Amino acid sequence: MILETNIDDMNPEFYQYLFEKLFGNGALDVFLTPIIMKKQRPGTLITVICEKENANKLKEIIFKETSTFGIRYYEVLRHKLDRDFSIVETTYGKIRVKKGYLDGKLIKAYPEYEDVKAVAEKTSNSISDIYRNVMRHIDLLFFKD
Amino acid sequence: MILETNIDDMNPEFYQYLFEKLFGNGALDVFLTPIIMKKQRPGTLITVICEKENANKLKEIIFKETSTFGIRYYEVLRHKLDRDFSIVETTYGKIRVKKGYLDGKLIKAYPEYEDVKAVAEKTSNSISDIYRNVMRHIDLLFFKD
Amino acid sequence: MILETNIDDMNPEFYQYLFEKLFGNGALDVFLTPIIMKKQRPGTLITVICEKENANKLKEIIFKETSTFGIRYYEVLRHKLDRDFSIVETTYGKIRVKKGYLDGKLIKAYPEYEDVKAVAEKTSNSISDIYRNVMRHIDLLFFKD
Amino acid sequence: MILETNIDDMNPEFYQYLFEKLFGNGALDVFLTPIIMKKQRPGTLITVICEKENANKLKEIIFKETSTFGIRYYEVLRHKLDRDFSIVETTYGKIRVKKGYLDGKLIKAYPEYEDVKAVAEKTSNSISDIYRNVMRHIDLLFFKD
Amino acid sequence: MILETNIDDMNPEFYQYLFEKLFGNGALDVFLTPIIMKKQRPGTLITVICEKENANKLKEIIFKETSTFGIRYYEVLRHKLDRDFSIVETTYGKIRVKKGYLDGKLIKAYPEYEDVKAVAEKTSNSISDIYRNVMRHIDLLFFKD
Amino acid sequence: MILETNIDDMNPEFYQYLFEKLFGNGALDVFLTPIIMKKQRPGTLITVICEKENANKLKEIIFKETSTFGIRYYEVLRHKLDRDFSIVETTYGKIRVKKGYLDGKLIKAYPEYEDVKAVAEKTSNSISDIYRNVMRHIDLLFFKD
Repeated sequence: MILETNIDDMNPEFYQYLFEKLFGNGALDVFLTPIIMKKQRPGTLITVICEKENANKLKEIIFKETSTFGIRYYEVLRHKLDRDFSIVETTYGKIRVKKGYLDGKLIKAYPEYEDVKAVAEKTSNSISDIYRNVMRHIDLLFFKD
Repeated sequence: MILETNIDDMNPEFYQYLFEKLFGNGALDVFLTPIIMKKQRPGTLITVICEKENANKLKEIIFKETSTFGIRYYEVLRHKLDRDFSIVETTYGKIRVKKGYLDGKLIKAYPEYEDVKAVAEKTSNSISDIYRNVMRHIDLLFFKD
Repeated sequence: MILETNIDDMNPEFYQYLFEKLFGNGALDVFLTPIIMKKQRPGTLITVICEKENANKLKEIIFKETSTFGIRYYEVLRHKLDRDFSIVETTYGKIRVKKGYLDGKLIKAYPEYEDVKAVAEKTSNSISDIYRNVMRHIDLLFFKD
Repeated sequence: MILETNIDDMNPEFYQYLFEKLFGNGALDVFLTPIIMKKQRPGTLITVICEKENANKLKEIIFKETSTFGIRYYEVLRHKLDRDFSIVETTYGKIRVKKGYLDGKLIKAYPEYEDVKAVAEKTSNSISDIYRNVMRHIDLLFFKD
Repeated sequence: MILETNIDDMNPEFYQYLFEKLFGNGALDVFLTPIIMKKQRPGTLITVICEKENANKLKEIIFKETSTFGIRYYEVLRHKLDRDFSIVETTYGKIRVKKGYLDGKLIKAYPEYEDVKAVAEKTSNSISDIYRNVMRHIDLLFFKD
Repeated sequence: MILETNIDDMNPEFYQYLFEKLFGNGALDVFLTPIIMKKQRPGTLITVICEKENANKLKEIIFKETSTFGIRYYEVLRHKLDRDFSIVETTYGKIRVKKGYLDGKLIKAYPEYEDVKAVAEKTSNSISDIYRNVMRHIDLLFFKD
């Protein structure tokens, strides 16, 4: 289920709080798109992706926390990769890795951003250096090429 | 009903006129999204929200007034707050106020932008000062907190 | 059919290659929308428009060539102008022209960008001068006004 | 002189009024850029281009009409085409045309949007048809190619 | 001092970490602008505003934490409102308020977002209701109109 | 040197050609920023970065190939990493690698996108798999961590 609403008259400070509320109440994803609305207004399109059973609760949050008077919604299908998680031992310690399978075949594996960030905050290395190091461990473990 | 079309080969001056034509023929809302199209083109996605019975007339306007050769359309549901209007007496005179109700409970009330702007044009006060003043009258009238 | 996926963790260099792969496998259109995702990430929404019979092949390309773990898809209707092509003789030689008809009436005619560009590369005239010249030939040939 | 300020906490309804105030007080151009600010905020960068002697007045308007606490400014040079205006007789009547000269040579000529729009509002023709017609008259009058 | 760099080949997940590092090392402001770069790339322009004495440290962070090979920088002047802070007693308790003065005259006063958010997290009221309530207390205290 | 111009009345098809012309005449970088201009126009800010000695030639191209009547320009300083190139032997053959040095120390090394893309076009592997493989070879060769 997709929920969408256009906002052209709300203080942009409130979006962060809105994100937290929506993610805390079952939103699968939330994102903002800059748009141009009538009367020269730089508006924002809010898109919320959720399961059908959470839609009502999320709509109520949007109505309460934003300035909107109307929410559009429609159903979409979702093709998701099968996924599981591994813990990978790297130079920097254990890191969670998210893996995706297409037709039973492992096609991608990425480290969890929060784990990489946590390492970056504890060392003087750059986050991209750590990410690359972690990727190397992942690739050697899961991929042959 | 949502109508959408991507434009990558039209003079951007024409959008203002297009907005006027669409709103003048039953569009509920119209907005533009900047997009990146093939061949390095900064394109524009036009989205028109309308009732089903106006869709054909609006599609014809889009075909005539833009460079597009195709329009996508699909139906969405809309959850709207019940709404009514009040006239509120403020320091600056009468201002129309739009109110929204969720499950019968008043949850929001905003002044009409055009009325606030009209006041700003007649006084030397800033539009945000006037807006705040009007909000204060609205809040005292409609909300207890 | 519309395929959509949000990308917040992929090197933007890969999009050009992705466009080529998607257009080479039946996509009718592909475009990118800049969005704001959770955790301060400047994300990208990829939208692919395609016929239903190509959707599976295109989804597989998206899964393989991007970092995404899920693709949303839904059906839309499309209202297309009837169209045909003419070759128009201009000051600069033959140029292909795409024409669109609404209810049997010719309402638009535009030169193919690639042909105009090819002329611009061979002459010292600007691309907009050439375009205007070509438009003049088109208008005189197809429109009375 | 360029004036710039980032806005992340203002109701977007106010921008239209701000544009009118700025253009009415000597701004040469005003435009908005969607940006991503700290804490997940979809912000707006306001850019005002003006002559040095109007900068103070325009800064005061920005301070009064927006929520900003600081304005950045710097000087830029401007290379402008020499320009003049003509009145061109078209199928639709007289239209003002803006012409640009590089090193004394006429290199561009465009109709005034407001004049083209005024014609579109009085006829049933599309604005792009009218624009093309007007361009044809301009080209035949001013360019040889 | 303004530091700017274009990024077209970096995983967008890293921006949040970059923001934290830059703000933690003296950046006055940091923001991202979506741009379109060569070869169909949706790039990101990073802008950092800082005092001159912090520029070198911040440039080093940008070089280490992003994929860029070059940083542009130039000086701008800044016109800042004189400002001070007050604590305002509201229905929800004490809230910090930032006030701005132009030529010695108080022209604006806004609550600190973090304080408003903290209240919203503790009550069941919406953040905009709380904000409006706080604004009302601010206006009654500091402005006469 | 930075050259900037706002475009609100040009067919977006022409940008690709403009990029080619500008890069072919000494531009160091060119990028587009979506902006909102007066009268509801979705405009485009063109930014060209160049050495001072190429500015006049590039300005002339912009005047000829776009609809603009004015170009803003100003000087900026640039802090560039020292850089050199290596050829790295990978599973997929030789790939050019661009390396960057801060204060004499190698801090980054990235494969040339064109080389990675060329491999992707010849194999059935995804471009991100190839990129990761190449990065692994680069990291093992140049970095110890």
